[in-house]
Amino acid sequence: MSWKSKRSLKEKFALKNSLAKEALSEFLGTFILIALGCGCVGQDVLSRGAYGGPMTVSLGFAMAVTIAVYVSGGVSGGHINPAISLAMCVTGRLKWTKLPIYILAQFLGAFVGAVAVFGIYYDAFMEYSNGILEVTGPNATAHIFATYPAPYLSLINGFADQVMSTAVLLLAVFAISDTRNNGVPKGLEPIVVGLLIIVLNFSLGMNSGCAMNPARDLGPRLFTAIAGWGMEVFTAGNNWWWVPVVAPMLGGVLGAMIYIVLIEIHHSDTQPVEENSVHGKHELTNVE
Amino acid sequence: MSWKSKRSLKEKFALKNSLAKEALSEFLGTFILIALGCGCVGQDVLSRGAYGGPMTVSLGFAMAVTIAVYVSGGVSGGHINPAISLAMCVTGRLKWTKLPIYILAQFLGAFVGAVAVFGIYYDAFMEYSNGILEVTGPNATAHIFATYPAPYLSLINGFADQVMSTAVLLLAVFAISDTRNNGVPKGLEPIVVGLLIIVLNFSLGMNSGCAMNPARDLGPRLFTAIAGWGMEVFTAGNNWWWVPVVAPMLGGVLGAMIYIVLIEIHHSDTQPVEENSVHGKHELTNVE
Amino acid sequence: MSWKSKRSLKEKFALKNSLAKEALSEFLGTFILIALGCGCVGQDVLSRGAYGGPMTVSLGFAMAVTIAVYVSGGVSGGHINPAISLAMCVTGRLKWTKLPIYILAQFLGAFVGAVAVFGIYYDAFMEYSNGILEVTGPNATAHIFATYPAPYLSLINGFADQVMSTAVLLLAVFAISDTRNNGVPKGLEPIVVGLLIIVLNFSLGMNSGCAMNPARDLGPRLFTAIAGWGMEVFTAGNNWWWVPVVAPMLGGVLGAMIYIVLIEIHHSDTQPVEENSVHGKHELTNVE
Amino acid sequence: MSWKSKRSLKEKFALKNSLAKEALSEFLGTFILIALGCGCVGQDVLSRGAYGGPMTVSLGFAMAVTIAVYVSGGVSGGHINPAISLAMCVTGRLKWTKLPIYILAQFLGAFVGAVAVFGIYYDAFMEYSNGILEVTGPNATAHIFATYPAPYLSLINGFADQVMSTAVLLLAVFAISDTRNNGVPKGLEPIVVGLLIIVLNFSLGMNSGCAMNPARDLGPRLFTAIAGWGMEVFTAGNNWWWVPVVAPMLGGVLGAMIYIVLIEIHHSDTQPVEENSVHGKHELTNVE
Repeated sequence: MSWKSKRSLKEKFALKNSLAKEALSEFLGTFILIALGCGCVGQDVLSRGAYGGPMTVSLGFAMAVTIAVYVSGGVSGGHINPAISLAMCVTGRLKWTKLPIYILAQFLGAFVGAVAVFGIYYDAFMEYSNGILEVTGPNATAHIFATYPAPYLSLINGFADQVMSTAVLLLAVFAISDTRNNGVPKGLEPIVVGLLIIVLNFSLGMNSGCAMNPARDLGPRLFTAIAGWGMEVFTAGNNWWWVPVVAPMLGGVLGAMIYIVLIEIHHSDTQPVEENSVHGKHELTNVE
Repeated sequence: MSWKSKRSLKEKFALKNSLAKEALSEFLGTFILIALGCGCVGQDVLSRGAYGGPMTVSLGFAMAVTIAVYVSGGVSGGHINPAISLAMCVTGRLKWTKLPIYILAQFLGAFVGAVAVFGIYYDAFMEYSNGILEVTGPNATAHIFATYPAPYLSLINGFADQVMSTAVLLLAVFAISDTRNNGVPKGLEPIVVGLLIIVLNFSLGMNSGCAMNPARDLGPRLFTAIAGWGMEVFTAGNNWWWVPVVAPMLGGVLGAMIYIVLIEIHHSDTQPVEENSVHGKHELTNVE
Repeated sequence: MSWKSKRSLKEKFALKNSLAKEALSEFLGTFILIALGCGCVGQDVLSRGAYGGPMTVSLGFAMAVTIAVYVSGGVSGGHINPAISLAMCVTGRLKWTKLPIYILAQFLGAFVGAVAVFGIYYDAFMEYSNGILEVTGPNATAHIFATYPAPYLSLINGFADQVMSTAVLLLAVFAISDTRNNGVPKGLEPIVVGLLIIVLNFSLGMNSGCAMNPARDLGPRLFTAIAGWGMEVFTAGNNWWWVPVVAPMLGGVLGAMIYIVLIEIHHSDTQPVEENSVHGKHELTNVE
Repeated sequence: MSWKSKRSLKEKFALKNSLAKEALSEFLGTFILIALGCGCVGQDVLSRGAYGGPMTVSLGFAMAVTIAVYVSGGVSGGHINPAISLAMCVTGRLKWTKLPIYILAQFLGAFVGAVAVFGIYYDAFMEYSNGILEVTGPNATAHIFATYPAPYLSLINGFADQVMSTAVLLLAVFAISDTRNNGVPKGLEPIVVGLLIIVLNFSLGMNSGCAMNPARDLGPRLFTAIAGWGMEVFTAGNNWWWVPVVAPMLGGVLGAMIYIVLIEIHHSDTQPVEENSVHGKHELTNVE
């Protein structure tokens, strides 16, 4: 395809509607997140630890977030997470009318990402458990796709865990994007977000795998229900499935609020706002 | 909350007093440091190494520092450590009158961070030791919160260890902030500080856990004393508790002095000062 | 050699032909990639895991890519991979007439890199297997140089694996170089590409070692065939050798197309193109 | 000490002689390199792997280089390695008359760094081997300070190993500093050098520990000879000690030459030189 033919391609197919572009972007970003992120869990589980472990899963999922934000950050802000999109709406950084489309695109991307992981490791899945797809027990593979609570975890502690970890996520994302704080240079925000995910996985990953993202968790869980693991993916862990869907939405808003109340509203107005944030620019165009 | 309501919120609650803002910032930064940093130790200990190890604890604590400095760096300089605040006062980069408030905010943040770690892993703590909170022995959990010396360590070696590691910390922090040296680009200082913490943990972590920070150590230790581990947290290790409080204060000042005497005072005055450091700008506003 | 003698050296030997310069650059870059990357696998295998493991191989190969791109990026774009060069041609970013030379230089660089790994670890190879160079079994060393499929892997799954991983590689490389997306600051692209390789190795490395690069795989495989491992390096794994040659070429073009269709063609033309990409500049000079 | 008293301090003690400043800078940088780098090896060995391993040693030594270059880069170029200083002289980037002072400062810094490691881990050394300091055997500790060859390694293979690894080091350092190549943003060179050290340790560390630096190896080796390990530190490994002293000097010059001949002399003169490198600026002032 030469440059000229790409020109005409552009004239025919380029989307004029910015929300459609943003939906494509969130879809692709969340696809990358799950294909690579859950791929790391898959490699660890299916190799029975020979090619993976807590380090590769935590670092890998973090770098999957970084790459996904590079793919989608300039067009849609790189939320790839309904909890982030909701917090952006609540704080006036994303139009409420866009929220349903963002969330739908994120769920679809996560679902298709789970399909890719299953496809690319199809032979490995068959080898691992002789074709039997199990949710619990030593040959369980459902936790490659969605998170499940540790045996000791009560629902209330698990709910608090997901509220707190998502609150810290959003608090830090708001700090990273705040150009009147210790702002990250433009174009490096995705790397700092990756470093943030690393420490969240290392510090808050043990209770229930630190989903912090309803699309990341429910999308692939739906896939496993359909693909052969069955409805046990919803009933397991005392019907755990709704916790990483509801708690992150609350936690994200809470974390954003804490950042605004403790830090952002106290910035003096005379302080110059440096325009070194892609997110910042994007949010403005989204609001109006 | 819409943008307009946030405006009026700002008018009502925004702090005009810069010291109050800075205290909030140091409180939040140190809270993040301990909630995430001690969270990494907690995940390692409580999973008996299944989800952690020396790598996750060292990398995780370092990234906790990085994130904490991004949260608090633009407002209060991101000290999150009384040893750093003291060295800043001694070298004329922070007003002495601010020091008590900085230190108090740091201790409070660390204490509340320890509360968060205990809360978020409450079920795991109960499972781990059947509800018995121990300071020593195979089921010890007190070292999730504060540092304890290795069995072989004498008090004098331990004291020297904390003086030296904090001296290297401050020496390097001063180099990183020195715009007339090989300056770090603005907005990336927190990442380089994180890399510094990694190597300090890998090289000087074995004697006594490399606290290098009185608030990081004494705040959570106080919490454990109150929360059920008892006064043994102070008597253990030959009354170790005061070493990571006193030695870092000395070491920090020593390290800052070494950097100034060996490097900083020799910069020729004609060399242009590049304004690429948030810390640099902040310090100026704080001094006057 | 003084500065003056270097001047005259330059007058005598400096290449005026830009394609010759670019060939040298791709040769050197791919040499570094293989000498360091396969060196990491060598250290892991030959020390029987004492000085290596999945972490060192994945992180090391990724950093080898980063360094190789720093060495060759400014002159030839730092493709060091025929799949990238092909995708650049297909999307009009590299002249088709340059493609054969780029690919030849990449293969030669990879071959010489394999020679270096064998040379530098000659004593270790002799010690490891008493001088017998084996392709399969517990003392196999051929996989230090080229990739081989896991025992469970069918050809079709293996082919899909190499298509998908290279597609994700190119998709992300195009995103990273797209200055109208969340652009990486100029001069830091090689680091982000390194982070991308990390997560690809952690998530898609288990099936067949994630070659994603015909030169990286076939060049060193040819060396092993000649150096004493024999023709089994081509027949092993059900004649696996052609898969990491053909599939990445397809996958790379596919990934580039997906990025263009889902993201790039929808950028509005009025959006300013920021000139913060070495790749961007280089591609323009290459096209005309 | 107030700002005013520091002023007068400056007037009294500030060095006007730039070579004296540079010597202090190289001394301090190399001290940091050894105190932190060999500290990582010490933590690994003395804890018998409980708090260290190949990952912590390789990553830690690399970050020690990064921090050491941040401390010394702006004043003396941050060589902290006679092999780098020699290559800079040979290529006209450092005055030959400065070379002896640079090398002396580097050796002194490395020696004092070794003293610091021994001091800070004094109790651990005594505990480890009941006070007996051994060069070989299961309780050996001499390799904390200097490098020793693997049992299988011949002198000629070992010599080639040190030539090649230092050649790659210099080749890459020259690429990183070449503003007409894919230049690293100003102030981030030390991080990229750290990434380079990581992959060198992972790929070329098994034969003999990848010293690549005469000061890093001979300085601490001298310390061990004096401090109680005795003259066996020189005779061990078939009189290995001179290899990491001589071979890196050759390898460094070789690597610099290869970069210049394959890449640098072919840059067209009309290409603009971007001034985004601290090293670049420094070298100019040093040459005249």
